[in-house]
Amino acid sequence: MNANASHDTIRAVQWHGDRLALLDQRRLPGEEIWFDCRTADEVTDAIRVLAVRGAPAIGIAAAWGVVLAAKSGVPLEPILATLRAARPTAVNLMWALDRMRSRIDAGADADALEREAQAIQDEDLAANRLMGELGAALIEPGSHVLTHCNTGSLATAGYGTALGVIRAGVEAGRITQVYAGETRPWLQGARLTMWELVRDGIPAKLVADSAASHLMKHGEVKWVIVGADRIAANGDTANKIGTYQLAIAARHHGVKFMVVAPSTTVDMATANGDDIEIELREATELLSIGGKRTVIDGADAWNPVFDVTPADLIDAIVTERGVILRPDESQMQAVFG
Amino acid sequence: MNANASHDTIRAVQWHGDRLALLDQRRLPGEEIWFDCRTADEVTDAIRVLAVRGAPAIGIAAAWGVVLAAKSGVPLEPILATLRAARPTAVNLMWALDRMRSRIDAGADADALEREAQAIQDEDLAANRLMGELGAALIEPGSHVLTHCNTGSLATAGYGTALGVIRAGVEAGRITQVYAGETRPWLQGARLTMWELVRDGIPAKLVADSAASHLMKHGEVKWVIVGADRIAANGDTANKIGTYQLAIAARHHGVKFMVVAPSTTVDMATANGDDIEIELREATELLSIGGKRTVIDGADAWNPVFDVTPADLIDAIVTERGVILRPDESQMQAVFG
Repeated sequence: MNANASHDTIRAVQWHGDRLALLDQRRLPGEEIWFDCRTADEVTDAIRVLAVRGAPAIGIAAAWGVVLAAKSGVPLEPILATLRAARPTAVNLMWALDRMRSRIDAGADADALEREAQAIQDEDLAANRLMGELGAALIEPGSHVLTHCNTGSLATAGYGTALGVIRAGVEAGRITQVYAGETRPWLQGARLTMWELVRDGIPAKLVADSAASHLMKHGEVKWVIVGADRIAANGDTANKIGTYQLAIAARHHGVKFMVVAPSTTVDMATANGDDIEIELREATELLSIGGKRTVIDGADAWNPVFDVTPADLIDAIVTERGVILRPDESQMQAVFG
Repeated sequence: MNANASHDTIRAVQWHGDRLALLDQRRLPGEEIWFDCRTADEVTDAIRVLAVRGAPAIGIAAAWGVVLAAKSGVPLEPILATLRAARPTAVNLMWALDRMRSRIDAGADADALEREAQAIQDEDLAANRLMGELGAALIEPGSHVLTHCNTGSLATAGYGTALGVIRAGVEAGRITQVYAGETRPWLQGARLTMWELVRDGIPAKLVADSAASHLMKHGEVKWVIVGADRIAANGDTANKIGTYQLAIAARHHGVKFMVVAPSTTVDMATANGDDIEIELREATELLSIGGKRTVIDGADAWNPVFDVTPADLIDAIVTERGVILRPDESQMQAVFG
């Protein structure tokens, strides 16, 4: 691995016994600012304003939010409800809260809840490492790949989902060039993924989201590799807005499409993508950039921040439980049922 | 038409007898700043830095650049060469300069060249009006449409190509909702198209480029309507980066795809899209926004600003010479050969 590889050291969500420290992802890459959450409400706010983002990281942060509440002795039921409503699409949030609730229902005290949150975090990191190996093994040596949004250390307990596969693939010589879509409106690809890739010394180029098809035609891209916010029982996958468009373009060009997510992202209670709630965020995210208005006053915008990629456009779903090729309901049931 | 319709009054390229006044498109929508070109070199610079942009507007501005040179008595041959090299993809630039050169070769004086440039400008406006009617007639009443980049008054002598069709379609009640892709990296859709649409009182919403496929699935979009920078002899069309991706997405969803451009955009000397030079611009256009660096230092980017949509993804090419449905080489030859 590259001598200056730093993915082992980036931990954007850090528990310090009495507070949760978060690397503020709104400020990257310009500033590396940490801030502390000392109450569950502060964690909820951090999730809502995207100071912490990425489906697995949101779940982990929420678990620590429950611990903060338990330690302060406040009633846990309202806290669980508030955290759950912070963002609607990523199911890892609901999963982590359900897991904490089951411990609460079993009579766990604050110390036991603290151990549970730590387990959630540790298991996520271990899952990422395993998925990295599993996903990288699918990739032909010397491949160029395209990713979208940020699915790295910043979005998880560390290493990453799709970006974990990319890290493992680069390490194994299977991936020689990474392209990162900038991921409007929030620019997770430009701001966060490029930050991780450059720090790791991985050959990477930023592209406009709209350049993906032109890149697939001319750029020797073999795989599009993305994360997920929720995977339905039939394999339909909700992920950052633009993922669906990449899947359509990939299929058009014979480029393979891989979804990488821990099993905590799978929601067998949701039959298919039509049943996944897609978060609409404020128009202002599109009408301004960096606080500066870029669009005429009076203009409106439509700002869905996720979309659904149907299973039939997905070549592989990689979880820590294994690889599902050409996912469908029966294959999903066999692994997650 | 809407009472506050202003598209008849926006003329971004204005000849004033001894100078060419340009509405600086880098500053919109925040500021409406005009600046004067008094030499052909100033016109070349304005084209290069995108103060004036849009394939037809570039051609018109270049013609006025030749007039400025002729009036000042400088040798015209180097001026023609410099203007021609200002941007490589839009063929209207080459066409306008060829037309001016043929007048020069025929012995035209500065006054005659001034009349020729005025004719080029007037003909472009007339073509836009006609294309607006022709294109709008293809659209079923009550349709939602999606457009990309800016193809309006700002990009032409006035009214617009794709945006001309949208204006005519709205006026005729055929179009009830317009979506504009923001068009990274230069945000022509966000900054310029929304500026024109809001000023005209046309119902419009801005969307991220990557949201187009999700929109097509859920937004009742019937047509994608775009302009062109060069149309090859087989109908392959170079246009703003992202156009190709929209065409793929449109076909996937059964949404129709319309290209609107004056016949000056057709280049029968270019056999197909593979022969069209695609302008690569500097990585900094993706690495910074509004002068502020958004990506980690040391990052690279790949910034093609056009792409090629193959003819087989195009349902209609609309020029002032008529409509070509399902374009191919023989149909193009019949109209433009």
